[in-house]
Amino acid sequence: MHAITITEPGGPEALVWHEVPDPAPPGAGEVLVEVVAGAVNRADILQRQGFYNPPPGASPYPGLECSGRIAAVGPGVSGWAVGDEVCALLVGGGYAERVVVPAGQLLPVPEGVDLKQAAALPEVVCTVWSNVFMISHLRPGETLLVHGGSSGIGTMAIQLAKAVGAKVAVTAGSKEKLERCAELGADILINYREQDFVAELDRATGGAGADVILDNMGAKYLDRNVRALAVNGRLAVIGLQGGAKGELNLGALLGKRAAVSATSLRARPLAEKAAIVAAVREHVWPLFASGQVRPVVDRELPMPEAAEAHRVVEASGHIGKVLLVAP
Amino acid sequence: MHAITITEPGGPEALVWHEVPDPAPPGAGEVLVEVVAGAVNRADILQRQGFYNPPPGASPYPGLECSGRIAAVGPGVSGWAVGDEVCALLVGGGYAERVVVPAGQLLPVPEGVDLKQAAALPEVVCTVWSNVFMISHLRPGETLLVHGGSSGIGTMAIQLAKAVGAKVAVTAGSKEKLERCAELGADILINYREQDFVAELDRATGGAGADVILDNMGAKYLDRNVRALAVNGRLAVIGLQGGAKGELNLGALLGKRAAVSATSLRARPLAEKAAIVAAVREHVWPLFASGQVRPVVDRELPMPEAAEAHRVVEASGHIGKVLLVAP
Repeated sequence: MHAITITEPGGPEALVWHEVPDPAPPGAGEVLVEVVAGAVNRADILQRQGFYNPPPGASPYPGLECSGRIAAVGPGVSGWAVGDEVCALLVGGGYAERVVVPAGQLLPVPEGVDLKQAAALPEVVCTVWSNVFMISHLRPGETLLVHGGSSGIGTMAIQLAKAVGAKVAVTAGSKEKLERCAELGADILINYREQDFVAELDRATGGAGADVILDNMGAKYLDRNVRALAVNGRLAVIGLQGGAKGELNLGALLGKRAAVSATSLRARPLAEKAAIVAAVREHVWPLFASGQVRPVVDRELPMPEAAEAHRVVEASGHIGKVLLVAP
Repeated sequence: MHAITITEPGGPEALVWHEVPDPAPPGAGEVLVEVVAGAVNRADILQRQGFYNPPPGASPYPGLECSGRIAAVGPGVSGWAVGDEVCALLVGGGYAERVVVPAGQLLPVPEGVDLKQAAALPEVVCTVWSNVFMISHLRPGETLLVHGGSSGIGTMAIQLAKAVGAKVAVTAGSKEKLERCAELGADILINYREQDFVAELDRATGGAGADVILDNMGAKYLDRNVRALAVNGRLAVIGLQGGAKGELNLGALLGKRAAVSATSLRARPLAEKAAIVAAVREHVWPLFASGQVRPVVDRELPMPEAAEAHRVVEASGHIGKVLLVAP
């Protein structure tokens, strides 16, 4: 088969479409997926740069999600058959023509979504659901603040939070991005280049603040996020684009009876991933069928042009997900 | 009646036993308690020093818990009658002969505990239960690290965690204190004056770390606490004795999929306090009846000698709670 390989850690040009050995046949509890499309995540960029190596045993190729058809089923797998159209959460290997996946990380293509676009879903839906709902327990009527509202994660977080009856505030870096967030349902629009998100959120919520914050900036926003939290607020950190170490005002946190969590999806053990995937299938998949939630895809590029896809994502001009379509 | 008043914020001598007006009769949903004993909490010392003023509408006298007998019942209170022996979580006023309490903050004196000693329970049991179990979800077989294991909070945390089948590590500042922690069931004993708690815990848990940490030090221990956490670990901060602002390593937190919460009890609204008290009555009170958990009282002093009681607590030589017995 072919896959995107990382010749040497570095810039986008490090991503080269090569002929590589086929994966070993699926083991117990695994299936082989013939990939139709993969999608780009920021973690792939870190991996390309050499900062986020795949865990032992994982595919060496980048790509944390894909869609495709089941080509082979390993021993002990029930509920899935050759030919099924699926999407999958991966520990790597989504930038390839074939990939082996633990059955617990498979999802059917949701009703109302085409097979290719389904590649845009597993990572963002599982990340948003596990953080905003399973860890931070966003409830109807509460306010969610999403940083980077126009990103793949952001566009999904807006839709899911609105679907459960929450109010949504977003930050983004341009008028165009904020307009797209509004189309998806965002109620409070904050241009972080021109406005102070703490002050804007305070004004828009009558001083109440955000019950849940979904943050990809880490240290850079830590103090401001704590200030933006409501009483009983929950800050969920899922990225460290603004650094890893920051000052935490525990006095402010204590005064609000608030909490800070930080997670990543890839490092979780199989059982935890399977639990998240099962919860997503139960709670989120029906929202696609009913049309309340849809994939947001910025563009599709041929998978061999992964380098160009990384350039697009690094330039941050996109809205939603960038897909890589297998030849 | 008489109460301990704070003449001027300052040292222990600021606490003076004065004649003061009786509290107003209990309003709707409230009862009047004739106090038998109160107990000292570190928050009382902050209040005495002028750093932790009672919220609006609260009693101006210190004291966050008491035991006693119901002397009058306000309108709309059911389940309680004049003469009932109770203990209560207070927003203030426990250093007094009479105090008015919302009925949701009353607990019966548990079976197997005498009325006076019951004053040692509400604040520590509610703090430990709400943080270690309701927020941090300590489970059987997990490891709890308790800082200040010989304090009122610490001695209760050890017993409750052991009662649910957890493993308990404690830090304390002397051999004598650690021996008392061991008698209460602590499995891993760390002298923080002589040992590095991160290294000791790592060794004692085979590198796994603590699933839950109950911390009263705040900033001073923040980085070490994050290092001591296990994967999926939860740090519950309930005091800031080591400062309010500290560096948080979000990268380490994210690598462990861990969380930091910070809470206090006094500022919570009535409904949240009542929910905690109800959970304590359901889950913890039976453990007193069965003898698995007991109050740990360092000494009893006459309530007019509250200044001496504060000196004892500030010197940190005590183990468990210091009671103030009404004349």
